[in-house]
Amino acid sequence: MTIEGKHIIIDGFECDSLHLNNIAFLENLCKKAALDAGMEILYSYFHQFQPQGVTGVLVLSTSHLSIHTWPEERYASLDFYTCGDSDLTAPVNLLLKELSAQKAMVYSIDRGVTQPQLIYCNEITTTDNSKGENKNVSTD
Amino acid sequence: MTIEGKHIIIDGFECDSLHLNNIAFLENLCKKAALDAGMEILYSYFHQFQPQGVTGVLVLSTSHLSIHTWPEERYASLDFYTCGDSDLTAPVNLLLKELSAQKAMVYSIDRGVTQPQLIYCNEITTTDNSKGENKNVSTD
Repeated sequence: MTIEGKHIIIDGFECDSLHLNNIAFLENLCKKAALDAGMEILYSYFHQFQPQGVTGVLVLSTSHLSIHTWPEERYASLDFYTCGDSDLTAPVNLLLKELSAQKAMVYSIDRGVTQPQLIYCNEITTTDNSKGENKNVSTD
Repeated sequence: MTIEGKHIIIDGFECDSLHLNNIAFLENLCKKAALDAGMEILYSYFHQFQPQGVTGVLVLSTSHLSIHTWPEERYASLDFYTCGDSDLTAPVNLLLKELSAQKAMVYSIDRGVTQPQLIYCNEITTTDNSKGENKNVSTD
């Protein structure tokens, strides 16, 4: 397995609060995103905070997918890190769409690279408030 | 709990191969780094690959600490993400020291921020090959 990988960092804002507090929804969503990307899930751990908030991690044979949510702030932070050269564009768009994120800061980092990188932010917003109408974001 | 947090991304090169394949060593090291930083560990999952390599995640009440290792390449990728304003400099230096990383690319990302950031790399190297003599790295 190559040491080089792709790490997509997502800060999603103005999400659907109910979804952000629904542990089953979030676990199913993350599993779908990982499986759609062809990942093997080694382990899944999701935790419900009280009075609200969920934190979860999928341990993958090719690294991990994590989510931490703050329903009261309509904010979710996600990390999707996989070694190899999988294209994560579709699963990242799925995550943003299903969380109904109206705005997101997306960073893409090449892991396992021995030279310093300058990391730019890909800011995405949607002017359509209907669920699932985020602009697509490329993770390349 | 504030949505703002600090995410330290570490790509460690020229590490100690034996340590990178020692699941008990790595789990204990990660737990020590997290506890030293005042974190609460909700769950720990570490997996030993065959013929070599370890992947592990600590789920924290304040996000997560993950490690993925490639002993054959002397490479370890780590993520230490915590909400709040904890100073992660000491635990990050502990991780690099105990893995005997001779070179590392370290990125620090402020999570939960609604404005785009430009992320710079903090490259660290050590000319001293003895264990634990890495230059210190600030995560501020």
